[in-house]
Amino acid sequence: MEQRVSMVTLGVTDLERSRTFYERLGWRGQTVQRTVFYQAGGLIVVLWGREDLAADAGVRGASSGGPVGGVALAHNVRCRSEVDEVVNAAESAGGEVTSRPAETFYGGYAGYFRDPDGHVWEVAWNPGFSMREDGSITLPDFASEA
Amino acid sequence: MEQRVSMVTLGVTDLERSRTFYERLGWRGQTVQRTVFYQAGGLIVVLWGREDLAADAGVRGASSGGPVGGVALAHNVRCRSEVDEVVNAAESAGGEVTSRPAETFYGGYAGYFRDPDGHVWEVAWNPGFSMREDGSITLPDFASEA
Repeated sequence: MEQRVSMVTLGVTDLERSRTFYERLGWRGQTVQRTVFYQAGGLIVVLWGREDLAADAGVRGASSGGPVGGVALAHNVRCRSEVDEVVNAAESAGGEVTSRPAETFYGGYAGYFRDPDGHVWEVAWNPGFSMREDGSITLPDFASEA
Repeated sequence: MEQRVSMVTLGVTDLERSRTFYERLGWRGQTVQRTVFYQAGGLIVVLWGREDLAADAGVRGASSGGPVGGVALAHNVRCRSEVDEVVNAAESAGGEVTSRPAETFYGGYAGYFRDPDGHVWEVAWNPGFSMREDGSITLPDFASEA
């Protein structure tokens, strides 16, 4: 697993309230369905419903402020097989796999694990997000793809 | 507030256990007192005691898996006065200031606020971390400074 974080997802209870808060702070994102994506340097920050995040991560209790606390980090990789490699490495390292790698609705492939304190990591291959040589990723212009 | 995340701090209950976990995943960090710092691209990932993090952020309940969930994001700024500006902007936007900006033990200046869902942000001016034009920061070599 390379020493990188690709995305930070904040689980929220009211997407519009949260979007407004960050907008007041000067942040400009792209709303895609029930998700808001912000390009924050080489990192991507995402606002997503806490229930949806917990379900996607295969983690119970996140919606009630459990050990996840409604935050997930993501580590994006360059190819599909690397998802299995990283999730297996996390399991070998003592992590708990909460969601085995599987096809995703956006045409990618992803799984989740938790570190010893329950911090959630998604390991994802997303062919729609271009990755630079150094591993940083850039949001597509969702509007032009719709 | 610029559209950037400078650091992600994971609150942990056993620093050695967590350091070992990430080391098994191939991550190499710098241990400074009771903290481990990893350069992860333009981002910095930090492992820090959950109790210490909660106390520093002025947030109660974080150690028991409360709304913070033991994760804090940091937004580093270019000068001391910008800390006050960003914390004030967050308050005006409807955020809760959990720790008013104050001098820090490392010679910097920092405060904390929470977004509508309780996600914790530190706003920090740290003269020891050099910042590039694009706002990304780089860890110093702590060993050479000791």
